[in-house]
This record gives sequence, structure tokens and C-alpha cells, in this order.
Amino acid sequence: MPKPLALVTRMDAATEAIWKDALSEALPEETLMAFREMTPQQRDAAEMAIVANPDPAQVAQLPNIAWIHSLWAGVERLVAELGADAPPIVRLVDPELARVMAEAVLAWTYYLHRDMPAYRKSQQAGQWAPRDYRHPRDITVGLLGLGELGRAAAGRLQAAGFDVIGWSRREATLEGAKTFCGEDGLVQVLAASDILVCLLPLTGETRGLLDARRLAQMKHGAAIVNFARGPIIVDADLIAALDAGRLSHAVLDVFEQEPLPAVSPFWAHPAVTVLPHISGPTDRFTAAGIVAANIRRWRQTGELPKTIDRSAGY
Amino acid sequence: MPKPLALVTRMDAATEAIWKDALSEALPEETLMAFREMTPQQRDAAEMAIVANPDPAQVAQLPNIAWIHSLWAGVERLVAELGADAPPIVRLVDPELARVMAEAVLAWTYYLHRDMPAYRKSQQAGQWAPRDYRHPRDITVGLLGLGELGRAAAGRLQAAGFDVIGWSRREATLEGAKTFCGEDGLVQVLAASDILVCLLPLTGETRGLLDARRLAQMKHGAAIVNFARGPIIVDADLIAALDAGRLSHAVLDVFEQEPLPAVSPFWAHPAVTVLPHISGPTDRFTAAGIVAANIRRWRQTGELPKTIDRSAGY
Repeated sequence: MPKPLALVTRMDAATEAIWKDALSEALPEETLMAFREMTPQQRDAAEMAIVANPDPAQVAQLPNIAWIHSLWAGVERLVAELGADAPPIVRLVDPELARVMAEAVLAWTYYLHRDMPAYRKSQQAGQWAPRDYRHPRDITVGLLGLGELGRAAAGRLQAAGFDVIGWSRREATLEGAKTFCGEDGLVQVLAASDILVCLLPLTGETRGLLDARRLAQMKHGAAIVNFARGPIIVDADLIAALDAGRLSHAVLDVFEQEPLPAVSPFWAHPAVTVLPHISGPTDRFTAAGIVAANIRRWRQTGELPKTIDRSAGY
Repeated sequence: MPKPLALVTRMDAATEAIWKDALSEALPEETLMAFREMTPQQRDAAEMAIVANPDPAQVAQLPNIAWIHSLWAGVERLVAELGADAPPIVRLVDPELARVMAEAVLAWTYYLHRDMPAYRKSQQAGQWAPRDYRHPRDITVGLLGLGELGRAAAGRLQAAGFDVIGWSRREATLEGAKTFCGEDGLVQVLAASDILVCLLPLTGETRGLLDARRLAQMKHGAAIVNFARGPIIVDADLIAALDAGRLSHAVLDVFEQEPLPAVSPFWAHPAVTVLPHISGPTDRFTAAGIVAANIRRWRQTGELPKTIDRSAGY
């Protein structure tokens, strides 16, 4: 029997089985086993692990894995929980994820641009209240984060006619758009954006990045969209900015704790749209294909895809 | 003094003045006068009229106008009210209107595709309820009406990856999309569309087109978007289809009577999004430029732009 690959997740058994089927179908030459079904001998023998938000204690019971492939693109929790001694980690880089996320950025940019929250409030109040139309070229959309997701979003927004600017930690270029970097650049992007879209990875540097001071640097009346990770925005500071009318609306798809607890003030806030982490769902068929290709190349060449830079956190 | 052009609208005086300024700026060589400011002699002398939903009694007081240019694209009311003896009518054909309307079609298609109404209900109920993502290629958007607006909308939807089909009264083609015409074709488009978008002109043939029988031919659970004219859909039949759960949602931007009366059941219906006729606002600067160019060409050549076919109604 060939040495197995381990699948380690915190999914319920039914969901994990669906993923296991998709991965097994993409990797017929491998023996993929769910961690919960493996004997201690099989866990010892496992050569690598495919994981989705795994329990670190289970990963620690796979002493001989050469590397770990995450099914998710966001790995900040995995990196933090597995610690410095863990095997190399590869995260999912899926063009389909970038496509779906860019689509979500465009869809919720239109949601704000075409005044859907305002018209919903008018409808609830029984008021016929048309608002002036604004051409997309007069609306600056600021993208925080210019990785695969930010770049794909920029392309969709530009094709739709919006004025796009971008910010990244390190200098980066974006065709047809002004880009900014570093602390000074962030101030400029915050001040210029009518709609600010956060697509940053969660790292030590981005945790709490958008706090009271930074939110106060935003354009008066701007809106914010967070499709990245909840802790990048300081919740209490965001609510204060919305309550003061300095920011007009927030579309939040990610939260410090998910599902969002019932006690959260976001649920009932009139200037907040709560989404249940749906902006960039991972497609299990495209994801399984990508994971399979990476594993196959490793089998053939011994080489790993680009692994996580633990110091950067992504 | 040159013979004047008359501006005849039902706008309030301030709004009319804003339009008059935009038109005068685009036509500095002409003397444009608001009907209400004209003497009987000036009304006799007027050579043509620029109108926006005018009082037909006022138009009748301009006995010598050679033609009428509507500031709006939709002229069904004008055609009906002025009667068969009225001078030739030219309606606004504005590429910017087609762009804005196509943008609205894409924006509210995303509204439905990305489940925004469902997530709003979940938020109101305090429920974290992610829904399965559907690729746009798996969503058929049926366009009723393949004129300038329908064609522009088709292009935006196709670029966004949706499966687009189209229906028109007379046979028409649409690059990259199946098209249908006539009664049989309508049944096919109704049955195939997940999202049905109405962009038809209001005519004798389209009034009441989407009645109980036609709504029953739609795909179970489909949504409907009306950006055309209210009377094309039979309100009571639409509400019955939504209440029965046969249709999932309606986005209505146009109504039999506008502003929508307070007594309308649409305001409070949980499966209806009410918009205050904002899908395709006329841009007064581009509109003024188009009207000016048509008038200038008529002055120079004596030729009118394409006029309304009264028998078709558009």
C-alpha cells in the first residue's frame, strides 16, 4: 500500500467527505485518507497533508509529513497555530478564487455606487426619493492589497469605468491605475477613496490597521468594504465613524469571530451590510485540481510550490 | 429676432430652468424659450419644440412647429396624448443612456446573482446563512427587448460571464447569444430565464404582456427586473406569483403611476425591491448635445432624424 496523504479539517464529516471525494477524483493515483479514519501507523506513514483550518494537535500527530497544502487562500490562523517548527505551508492560489472575489468587489461596488442601501431605506420608509446619478469615472475606488485578488479586482473595476487606485505594503504597479505604498501612501489612498475595499492578508502589520486614526483620514462620506479578514478593522472605531456620519456605509463579509455572534452591534446597524463570509468562496473542483497539480509536480520533481513566508505571514 | 424654439415640459420651474440652460448652451445660435414665458405671437412663430412629457394642450398652442424632439427615450405617453395629427416626433437616442441602463442591468443582475436580497433578510433576522455560489455561466439572463438598451445590456452581461438570451418582437440577432422572437420565442425565453430583464418599449402590444399566463410560463424560482415601463407587467398577477413562491424576487424601477402611490402593496412586499425610476437617468449634458446636433442638422439640411413609427409606438 502506498504511503497515504492526510486530509485534516475542522469541517463536519459530511462536508469533509464531499471535499475528500473531489480531491480523490483529482488525484486517483494517491491514497487520500481523512485524519479521523487513519490508524496511528497510517498517521506515521503520511507523507504530506492537505488541510483546511486544521486542529494543530492533529497536524502534530503526522510526524513525517514533508509539507502542508492549505485548501484555503487565507492561512494566517494556520501559520499562527502551527508555529515555527511546522513543515512548509503552501496556500491555495486559485485564479477562480480571484475571479469570484473580483466579481464580488464589482458587485458590492455597484451596490454602493447605485445607492442600493439608500433605496432600501427609502422603500422601508415608503419614500420615492431618486438620487443623482454619478458616472463611475467620478468615483475613486481604493484597493488595499495588490496581490492576486487586488489585481483581479482592479481589472474588473477599471473595465466598469471606475477610477481605481491601489495600496500595497511594498511598491507595486497596476496597469492604468495609480499605486501607493508605505505609510504616506496609505494616507493618500484613504483620503482619495470614495469606496475603500480591503483585500489585505491578516498579518502582524495589518491587524488593527484601520483604527480610529486611519478611519479619520478617510474622505468624508466614504464607504468601506471588508472582504479580507475581520481584525484588520477595529470594530468599535468603525461603528463610531459610521455613527458620526463620517463614513456612510460598511459592507462587512469577515469578522473577528465567525459566525458573527448574536450580540454584535453590526447586525442591527443601519449603515452596515453583514454578509456571511461569501465574497470569495473556494470552488472545490478548481481547488482540488490545483492541489492535485501541485502534489503531482512534487511527486515528479521533488519541488514544492511557493511556500508561505512565515515572517510576512502570507 | 429669429423664430424661437419652444421648450415644453411638466417639470417644476427650477428643474426646467436647469434643462433650458443646458440646451441653450448647446445651441447658442438658437433662441430657446420656455413655453410658459412665450407670448401668443412667439408661440405662433415657434418652428419646433423640445419636449419632456408635455401637456398636450400646450403643444396644441404651437401651431407652426415642424417637429418635436423628446428629451426622453420613452415616448409612449407623448405619442398617445398628442394623437395622430401631431407633427413628427423624434425621441432621444443617447448612447450614454444605453451605457447607464446596461450598467443598471448588470448591477441589479449581480444584486440577484450574489443573493443580496436574501442576505439582507438574514441580517434582519440575525442569521448567519451562507448560500451556495453559482457561476454566472450557470445563470441564464433573458432580455426582453433588443433595441439600443437591450443590446448594450447584453454586452455587459456577456462580458461578466452570464448566459444571455434575448427576445424581440421582430427577428433580431445578438452576437454570442441565442435570440428568439414572436409568441413561441417568448415562451422559450420565459421558460429558460433565471433572471428576466424587461427593456421593452410600452406599446399596445406590450401593455399587460407579462400577465398571469406569461408569468406562469417562467422558470420556477426565477426573478424579474423591470427597467422599462410599469404597465408591461400586470401588478396583481406579479404579486400573486411572488406570494405563491413561483417567482423569487422582483426589482421594479417603473410603475403604472409614478411616484409609486403610498397604497401600493409593492412598498412593503418582502420579495420586491422598489426603485424610484433611476435605472436609466437621462444625462442632461449628453442629451442636450444630441438634441442640438439633431436641430443643427435639420437647420442645415432640412432633414429630420429617424422619427417615431406611430403604428409601432416607438
